[in-house]
Amino acid sequence: MTQSKAPAKRADAQRSIAAILDAATESLSRNPDASVSEIAKAAGVGRVTLYGHFPSRADLVDAAFAHAIEDGHDALEAVDLSGDPRLALARLIESSWQLVDRFRSLLLAAQSVLPPGRIRALHEEPMQRVQHLIERGQAEGVFRSDLPTSWLVGTMHSVMHNAADEINAGRLATDQAADCITATVLAAFTPPGHRIPTLTDL
Amino acid sequence: MTQSKAPAKRADAQRSIAAILDAATESLSRNPDASVSEIAKAAGVGRVTLYGHFPSRADLVDAAFAHAIEDGHDALEAVDLSGDPRLALARLIESSWQLVDRFRSLLLAAQSVLPPGRIRALHEEPMQRVQHLIERGQAEGVFRSDLPTSWLVGTMHSVMHNAADEINAGRLATDQAADCITATVLAAFTPPGHRIPTLTDL
Repeated sequence: MTQSKAPAKRADAQRSIAAILDAATESLSRNPDASVSEIAKAAGVGRVTLYGHFPSRADLVDAAFAHAIEDGHDALEAVDLSGDPRLALARLIESSWQLVDRFRSLLLAAQSVLPPGRIRALHEEPMQRVQHLIERGQAEGVFRSDLPTSWLVGTMHSVMHNAADEINAGRLATDQAADCITATVLAAFTPPGHRIPTLTDL
Repeated sequence: MTQSKAPAKRADAQRSIAAILDAATESLSRNPDASVSEIAKAAGVGRVTLYGHFPSRADLVDAAFAHAIEDGHDALEAVDLSGDPRLALARLIESSWQLVDRFRSLLLAAQSVLPPGRIRALHEEPMQRVQHLIERGQAEGVFRSDLPTSWLVGTMHSVMHNAADEINAGRLATDQAADCITATVLAAFTPPGHRIPTLTDL
């Protein structure tokens, strides 16, 4: 009896978790301060069930943020990273920014309850893609090699999140963001002594 | 009687607040997770007194962070911002970074409980200094004018905080940080079409 019940229970739990993560991602994308009660209601589960899977609001925000990054995997995987590394970088920034902007409110929720190191750790997979592209650009001499590669990866991460902060603060229009990020990251990656490229020249 | 007591009470309260802020700045600079009880103990006040002035740990971290920024005022005020704006920027980064590095643990405490917009708002005064220098560099044609000034201010803020994150994560040595920040911010501020300067050329 227990043996036949256990898989059904596990399937139930998995359905609950999936519903909670979808509801959390959706609710926090509308309102970074969405409460656990609101999320439980949107997921159609009780608060006790929710707390059974996610002991604190921070755990729930962490899981919803990881869920959103997983969601973006296919879009980033589809970006053509071949050819001139600077143009490939511009394409990768464009697609990455669309995701950051879509999940801007969820990012704010995460930034309010998680330390920056945790937010960065959740970006491990998209960051590896950036790192490989930087390494190729360094090997081809179009990106600077005099600073640590990890520093350049972190620079792109923080410049992109700065755009989200600037929009949240009302200092930047959403449609200016991708151009600002691309211009700044391209400049930051350019080797010393080289001219700052403009996309139209490449 | 009440009239003579009131100022004494206010003076008492001010002494308590000052002791709490010093203790909070000191404790959080050693351990970003320092508890309210630890801070009250270090300040020589009871928890009830502390909570009377700072209703939550987040309020206390916020006040300690504001206190640390005020502490840095004189050091930044002493920086010579005249002459070539790029060299002035390098000097300002050097002094600002010393402060960020000194309060790196307190910054981490703040980042874990305050949203990025609040952390940025607490930097209002040092950021205005950066903004004036950028405007002068733009007027003299050595900093780019094709991106919003507020964007460049935010870029310097986030690149500097990225250095703190990278050190916390063990990916950057403390003594590499100022050079990385200066190189990246100088590049980010260089007008398109211009060569990325190196400090030794200026």
